[in-house]
Amino acid sequence: MISDIFSIAFKVRDYECDMQGIVNNTNFLHYLEHARHEYLKSVGLDFAELTKKGVFLVVRRTEIDYLLPLRSNDTFYVTCELFRISPLRFGFKQEIFRKVDDRKVASAHVFGTSINKDGKPFLAKEIDNLFAKE
Amino acid sequence: MISDIFSIAFKVRDYECDMQGIVNNTNFLHYLEHARHEYLKSVGLDFAELTKKGVFLVVRRTEIDYLLPLRSNDTFYVTCELFRISPLRFGFKQEIFRKVDDRKVASAHVFGTSINKDGKPFLAKEIDNLFAKE
Amino acid sequence: MISDIFSIAFKVRDYECDMQGIVNNTNFLHYLEHARHEYLKSVGLDFAELTKKGVFLVVRRTEIDYLLPLRSNDTFYVTCELFRISPLRFGFKQEIFRKVDDRKVASAHVFGTSINKDGKPFLAKEIDNLFAKE
Amino acid sequence: MISDIFSIAFKVRDYECDMQGIVNNTNFLHYLEHARHEYLKSVGLDFAELTKKGVFLVVRRTEIDYLLPLRSNDTFYVTCELFRISPLRFGFKQEIFRKVDDRKVASAHVFGTSINKDGKPFLAKEIDNLFAKE
Repeated sequence: MISDIFSIAFKVRDYECDMQGIVNNTNFLHYLEHARHEYLKSVGLDFAELTKKGVFLVVRRTEIDYLLPLRSNDTFYVTCELFRISPLRFGFKQEIFRKVDDRKVASAHVFGTSINKDGKPFLAKEIDNLFAKE
Repeated sequence: MISDIFSIAFKVRDYECDMQGIVNNTNFLHYLEHARHEYLKSVGLDFAELTKKGVFLVVRRTEIDYLLPLRSNDTFYVTCELFRISPLRFGFKQEIFRKVDDRKVASAHVFGTSINKDGKPFLAKEIDNLFAKE
Repeated sequence: MISDIFSIAFKVRDYECDMQGIVNNTNFLHYLEHARHEYLKSVGLDFAELTKKGVFLVVRRTEIDYLLPLRSNDTFYVTCELFRISPLRFGFKQEIFRKVDDRKVASAHVFGTSINKDGKPFLAKEIDNLFAKE
Repeated sequence: MISDIFSIAFKVRDYECDMQGIVNNTNFLHYLEHARHEYLKSVGLDFAELTKKGVFLVVRRTEIDYLLPLRSNDTFYVTCELFRISPLRFGFKQEIFRKVDDRKVASAHVFGTSINKDGKPFLAKEIDNLFAKE
């Protein structure tokens, strides 16, 4: 794992596995979301705090390629890289790697934006600062 | 809703909503999966039976656009159309519509294939028949 | 099913099944919650509306006996009966029955209360009315 | 935390929080299950391996008291103590503690047994050994 890309480690929980004995593909989005929120915290942006203030970070599009299955006992890490598309639109490049052999398990692009409680586009200062920092 | 496209109705369950008060985007994949499996049953293909026989239908790629949120009390329907890409690769075009005003809530393409327990490509007769039927 | 007890029908969704090929026991709590919220709506109490107003209905204790498994394709219904324990504490007797043979799948008691955003006991008028109605 | 009781650490994932902004109570069962499976691994019993061999460890009853909410960012640990009730019935005492102040968040008893694929009671040697070890 390249050291300057944010990543966090997970371990498969058995309730995430379905009748095929592998992690159900919908759980990969859970992993990606948790990694994004942890990434955002690492750069000073707290999803829950923003939500309380009425700033909603929302996903507009997800593209994910499933390359390998995850199974009971597997540990893996999920990366997260942020890029800005426009003042109010941003994207995350995220990948999942199996720990045992560093093989890529999934590759995703997640596109999001920021809205207020009425669903209108809203650029929170905290988000703008985030990109300025980069 | 156009009558010759398969669709099933759902109602939001409150545990599917997150701290923003809307259905968490990961649950949309749950809805899509359930609609696909019900569609497959409607054309004679039982996901659980295939799994028991060692034929695994797996998702290789998902693309989903989130257009509108779903909230507590919302009822909605999910469509499912199947198309074949190659002997062993198939895709599903799926859309989610809010019942109250028929507005589109999400639009997705899900690409899948069929493998055996060892992860090798495997074309089950039942799947081949499915397309022959069309 | 005795007609004067509230119940709603469900169908197993395959993502709810785990590697044993049966519905993971944690999902039974999802079914119970959804049935409770639908029951509350049927008597004029909307969980999401209350939440928006800062009235939080919360579960304090759950007891559940798992009697039979649920599998892919199973349809089942979940009952809900409310009783009051004290001005601010109430309980739900809930049962799950398999549709095919009306056999009991699970039996539960769920105990709850009503608090405000600060976690303090709070008896909303709507909840008090609910019991007056009975 | 008393050092000779098994425990594992978790961090709240935001998708586990519901519209009240706290972890939905059903997720507590997920935490308990994962802690039990990790505990079992620590004493040589692999849930997934047993499942593959046709030995199903199943939950028969859960009792859980919810004492405090968990919120976004909270870290917590879940304990697990096993006791035998009869040759084929065993119980787990499990507690959840918030890391920040070591306050108890939930307290549970989970009762289980071991069956074969046909649902018949079945005492796997591995399970019997487990208690012999104690």
